[in-house]
Amino acid sequence: MSNFKKTKLAILGLGCVGLPNAIAWSKTELAPVLAFDINKKKISRLKKGNYPNYIPKENHAKKLKIKYTSNPKSLNKANFIIACVPTPINKSKKPDLHYLKSAAKIIGENIQKSSIVVLESTVYPGTTETIFVKIIEKFSNLKCGPQFKIAYSPERINPGDNQHAIDKTIKIISAQDKKTLTKVEKTYSLICKKGMHKVSNIKTAEATKLTENIQRDVNIALVNELSKLFKKLNISTHEVMKAASTKWNIQYYEPGLVGGACLPKDPYYLLYKANKLNVPLEITKISRKINEQMPNYIIQETIKALKKKNKKIKNSKILIVGLAYKLNIQSIKAAPIKFVIEALKNNGGKIFGYEPLLSSIKIKKTFGIKILSDLSSLDKFDSIILNVVHDSEKIILEKLKKISSSCTLIDIKEFLLKK
Amino acid sequence: MSNFKKTKLAILGLGCVGLPNAIAWSKTELAPVLAFDINKKKISRLKKGNYPNYIPKENHAKKLKIKYTSNPKSLNKANFIIACVPTPINKSKKPDLHYLKSAAKIIGENIQKSSIVVLESTVYPGTTETIFVKIIEKFSNLKCGPQFKIAYSPERINPGDNQHAIDKTIKIISAQDKKTLTKVEKTYSLICKKGMHKVSNIKTAEATKLTENIQRDVNIALVNELSKLFKKLNISTHEVMKAASTKWNIQYYEPGLVGGACLPKDPYYLLYKANKLNVPLEITKISRKINEQMPNYIIQETIKALKKKNKKIKNSKILIVGLAYKLNIQSIKAAPIKFVIEALKNNGGKIFGYEPLLSSIKIKKTFGIKILSDLSSLDKFDSIILNVVHDSEKIILEKLKKISSSCTLIDIKEFLLKK
Repeated sequence: MSNFKKTKLAILGLGCVGLPNAIAWSKTELAPVLAFDINKKKISRLKKGNYPNYIPKENHAKKLKIKYTSNPKSLNKANFIIACVPTPINKSKKPDLHYLKSAAKIIGENIQKSSIVVLESTVYPGTTETIFVKIIEKFSNLKCGPQFKIAYSPERINPGDNQHAIDKTIKIISAQDKKTLTKVEKTYSLICKKGMHKVSNIKTAEATKLTENIQRDVNIALVNELSKLFKKLNISTHEVMKAASTKWNIQYYEPGLVGGACLPKDPYYLLYKANKLNVPLEITKISRKINEQMPNYIIQETIKALKKKNKKIKNSKILIVGLAYKLNIQSIKAAPIKFVIEALKNNGGKIFGYEPLLSSIKIKKTFGIKILSDLSSLDKFDSIILNVVHDSEKIILEKLKKISSSCTLIDIKEFLLKK
Repeated sequence: MSNFKKTKLAILGLGCVGLPNAIAWSKTELAPVLAFDINKKKISRLKKGNYPNYIPKENHAKKLKIKYTSNPKSLNKANFIIACVPTPINKSKKPDLHYLKSAAKIIGENIQKSSIVVLESTVYPGTTETIFVKIIEKFSNLKCGPQFKIAYSPERINPGDNQHAIDKTIKIISAQDKKTLTKVEKTYSLICKKGMHKVSNIKTAEATKLTENIQRDVNIALVNELSKLFKKLNISTHEVMKAASTKWNIQYYEPGLVGGACLPKDPYYLLYKANKLNVPLEITKISRKINEQMPNYIIQETIKALKKKNKKIKNSKILIVGLAYKLNIQSIKAAPIKFVIEALKNNGGKIFGYEPLLSSIKIKKTFGIKILSDLSSLDKFDSIILNVVHDSEKIILEKLKKISSSCTLIDIKEFLLKK
């Protein structure tokens, strides 16, 4: 226990990665944990115990051992700083590192000598050591190596998926030298009960995180392209994938929209780096294109289906079931269904939504559509798009099945067949 | 036991699928099994117990209960015919169904009423019912359904991989109706000890097999494209993939040449069908292109490496370690290393090979290169290409490591790092 006497842990950035992280650390002997975010409103909400819905309920009530703050100066009390800032893309789909750079500046201005800084944000290979560290050095006047240490451990948080929470998932760790890596491993062992996987340097860990999300994005894109063919052949993609995955080396994937905070943007980080080095990443690039075209595919399928009933999108009543960005997730972050809704609205469709996992106010604000509180009058719709049917909502599939012959149903993920 | 009293089983086509199949059936109560091939030389070799090397040794000596024949008339004694004929592609990469069509003709000319015909060959969706069956009907004057039954069960044989032999792998089965499917299931249960997975119709089973091999081909192509970037970044692809696959939904793949009887051609079967229906399969297509360009990538890497030593391919002594089409496989079937060898030879390179799993005569005949019987004089080579280092050959990695600094080593699969 005494090992950690001197470790003062701080988390920088309290989004869907930093916050679950802070909560995990608050349950260890390193508590109380310092939890910093520049967003003052967020800090005041968290101080009141007002947590976002991806944080498991049992933590909302509890008095957590976390010291929330928006004062950067507090960071000078810490000697083990974990940065969990967003790394989005800009409008031209290039890495937008402004959060990362501003975090590095804040750390640089407040870091104490001999601290360890761990970056958990997703970045392209080289970012941690050539951008993040350089800014910390500049603002701290300290030299990375002799005066502070850098480590990188990509997050694997799947928001809302408690089966793969921090304590149930192997964590990749890397550091600038072996001694630092050992210290990081010892410290993280307090929350990573499933274990850690060490890689030999920071750029390898950076590449690993991007590879994980690119492999997923590519495989979803592949099943998306196959599903378009299988639909024409009247073959169930779900049945094919389920059968294929009985082979020892084949993995099940399902078609659909790809949203969330990671997959839609992570491939662009590696594409950016590859482009600089003149290495074409053709599959990575085309997979993004295919997944980004899926909203349009859903729109085309809706038009085709309505045409069979001699209708057009104009004036048709269209219901979208499920607005979260994926199954069983209480989040509409980068939900690509938004593009579908906008296109349908622009063509004069009357769009309704159903999403029991999220508040109607939030949905109305994000999508500008009418919200149904139940599915009692399904027969009034000309078309129904099954986007996401959460496990807790499976009961509605019975109702949908009954009207499926009379109504034009768009069911890319084959919820009705899987049932 | 009495269930199978009336079942007389015949295998048509004794290649790397039909032959292991015949051997598996010969060990059941359905033995003796009729094993037919049009190739008379092959039949005479098999009759003598002269088996190809992908058949486990213990079967060579044994007196197997198989009746080998090249007489098509013998098939009229069978009532359960399993067709395992090759389905290659032609020079323009379109499905070449001539073996399948000729098998259907032979079956049609000899089939007895009430037989069940099972096709195991890889085909695009629709082939079994619209091509194979039609030919059988034409030559038999029997109607599929009332007078004979059709089923489809794609093979999952991995030549040389006994861990995934027929009895250790789940088998996909499908048939034209439920009653036939039940009969097929009962019969196959004699050899499929791991179980079967039923799908609802034949075209779904046809699509399943192609999807399996396309998923593999795409994922290997992805790791091939990533590995080119990682090499420039001085990152080990093996280390990245090993780390990434510690995540619950990520699978390990390694870069390299893609050969063998399935992956290089199966994607073209689905591409052919998709093309007919105007559905672009972009990822499937580009993945093939990337994997087909890998021999050229190896050549380019060899040129680059030799350049550092002020050498050219011309007059350089180049050794290729491993000539089989993949790890631990005693086969050079569609081994893409052939393209590498040809290009190097055309540019004046002096090419040597090392492949302890295969006979030097066979290698010389296929590749036209000199064969080393051991690796005692590695220092005389200007460059060494590590293509395949079989598990039984791991000992040579020590030797290769010693010379790796003085010699130009091309090690796409990172055998030296993995060690």
